[in-house]
Amino acid sequence: MQRGDRAVCPLYWDDDTGHIVLLDQTKLPTETVWIHLNRVEDVWSAIKQLKVRGAPAIGIAAAYGVYVAVADEPENDCKAFYKAFVERRDYLATSRPTAVNLFWALERMTRVLDEAMQVTDEVAGLKRVLLEEAHTIREEDARICRKIGENALPLLRDGMGILTHCNAGGLATSQYGTALSPIYLAHERGWKLNVFADETRPLLQGARLTAWELLQAGVDVTLICDSMAAVVMAQKKVQAVIVGCDRVAANGDVANKVGTYGLAVLAKAHDIPFYVACPLSTIDMQAKTGEHIPIEEREAEEISHGFGKQTAPDGVTVYNPAFDVTPHTYVSAIITERGIVRPPFDQSLKTLFGKVG
Amino acid sequence: MQRGDRAVCPLYWDDDTGHIVLLDQTKLPTETVWIHLNRVEDVWSAIKQLKVRGAPAIGIAAAYGVYVAVADEPENDCKAFYKAFVERRDYLATSRPTAVNLFWALERMTRVLDEAMQVTDEVAGLKRVLLEEAHTIREEDARICRKIGENALPLLRDGMGILTHCNAGGLATSQYGTALSPIYLAHERGWKLNVFADETRPLLQGARLTAWELLQAGVDVTLICDSMAAVVMAQKKVQAVIVGCDRVAANGDVANKVGTYGLAVLAKAHDIPFYVACPLSTIDMQAKTGEHIPIEEREAEEISHGFGKQTAPDGVTVYNPAFDVTPHTYVSAIITERGIVRPPFDQSLKTLFGKVG
Repeated sequence: MQRGDRAVCPLYWDDDTGHIVLLDQTKLPTETVWIHLNRVEDVWSAIKQLKVRGAPAIGIAAAYGVYVAVADEPENDCKAFYKAFVERRDYLATSRPTAVNLFWALERMTRVLDEAMQVTDEVAGLKRVLLEEAHTIREEDARICRKIGENALPLLRDGMGILTHCNAGGLATSQYGTALSPIYLAHERGWKLNVFADETRPLLQGARLTAWELLQAGVDVTLICDSMAAVVMAQKKVQAVIVGCDRVAANGDVANKVGTYGLAVLAKAHDIPFYVACPLSTIDMQAKTGEHIPIEEREAEEISHGFGKQTAPDGVTVYNPAFDVTPHTYVSAIITERGIVRPPFDQSLKTLFGKVG
Repeated sequence: MQRGDRAVCPLYWDDDTGHIVLLDQTKLPTETVWIHLNRVEDVWSAIKQLKVRGAPAIGIAAAYGVYVAVADEPENDCKAFYKAFVERRDYLATSRPTAVNLFWALERMTRVLDEAMQVTDEVAGLKRVLLEEAHTIREEDARICRKIGENALPLLRDGMGILTHCNAGGLATSQYGTALSPIYLAHERGWKLNVFADETRPLLQGARLTAWELLQAGVDVTLICDSMAAVVMAQKKVQAVIVGCDRVAANGDVANKVGTYGLAVLAKAHDIPFYVACPLSTIDMQAKTGEHIPIEEREAEEISHGFGKQTAPDGVTVYNPAFDVTPHTYVSAIITERGIVRPPFDQSLKTLFGKVG
């Protein structure tokens, strides 16, 4: 995929230069800056400094990053090449130690290299295998995102108002995103949707990222404060809520960015369906209910000094849960790349995983 | 009242200097700056620049302000004195043309001056009457706020968690506030309450003002983002929601800062009582329902450029309703200086107004 293919993707591979071309998300929403990365140190910094964020996007960046790390290695010694790979892979892994997808991608790259070492002793061939695998990781994610969008599309209709929270969009994945995927597909089909984006305090992913990427793609988007969602619902401006998620329990409880649970309660009170869009990999059948999902608490400063300016008194106690858990009773449907599941989720999720993908 | 009496009041009269001493609320929450005002131009600027805000507090500032405006006038000519009063009163009225209480206070000051002119021809006496009336306006408000607090107190209990939104506190009134009044009274009685303050986007009155004034008074306060209210309720951290309001319709529908309606829906879903505290003057028996209360829409920049920094893309559409209307079905009780009313409000409010105060 080249940059021109879609307005909204967080990074692409430039075959001509052999560079990762990455949208610096720390500059959004005011500047659109694409940076070229061809040194592992630059990829490390980009991940570290959150220039790329969102689990799938980090995985893709890491996959290309570990290829870039060894792309210029001499081609006369497979063992030396492998040693260099491991060294730089381990270095890259230190860029964001809490990002599960970072490790997942690096392990996968290691696995294909291990396998290739069994069948070839040409370094050039090993390099090719690594680059191909990075492409595959990106393409798989793109396919999953697109499939989620296609599966969700029957839930929408032309002219609909849709509310979303945080950023579950193209910027967090290879492209399309999860919650935003059906919106992009509907837009491609010429439907007019009115998307309302919660700004999503404290880190404002809705304002900075969701509003930006929908605007880039030409989708009609209106930014609101989180506290205005209820008003928009009461005024019948939205007919569906769609969010992404961080983790789904086996009973359909959903952990996602804080604010999601409140939205789900409000949606139910207004008879508006509440949809969760996510890849199968997000569904954790080992977690029986949402109670088994730990909720991270983050620093007070995100709330008290949120806009680069102190907005709360010194010494005030702050409660800053990063996520919340929406009980399955509030979820109308979960949309995955394998199809839509509906309540009772303890049954339907089991069936989904039983299905051949 | 002198400054030492209570930690939290927006302004007081200093008899020794003949100055209004006013807490510059634009400097909160990082600086506590008391400014001395003894020229009408300074009072005008203080109101204009929102150094003092909140309907009752503006009224009190205007009353003292129009006294200060003529306090140094020569005392030999009543007619000249009256002319000077009218001139400066009209000037003061231009400081914030949308503030109803500004006009209410200036009219009241004019009325007492008119009456005094009938019975005295001593300018010194006229000045005395004006200062006394300013004191009375402040004292009446303090009495109303305290009475609201006393009436609300039976709804609370020691150890309770309470959620509030925006700033309906001492800073907006003479002292005590409306929604915060029972909290201060409970605190005086030695009760431990755990108050959760919504930061209240877009203008962050909860973070800047409510958290500040509760902290000043030694009340245990925890700041949260608006989107976290549902989590706090689900975790059973609060057992009551108390808010102030801008206007109540005859059927009990309540117009208040945007976000209030969502809170009310969430409170109901969690079986938490939702209380509205307000003076009788806020209840508009001419407005049959909340539908008759117009909702002001404010500038996009409050959301897209919160606090001097752009946090949303150029050109994004923003919806910024300043208020919302909470249907009476979500309101557990309305607390006024004359007592508590409960549903059905169309009956109970009528009865309340029939009662001798």
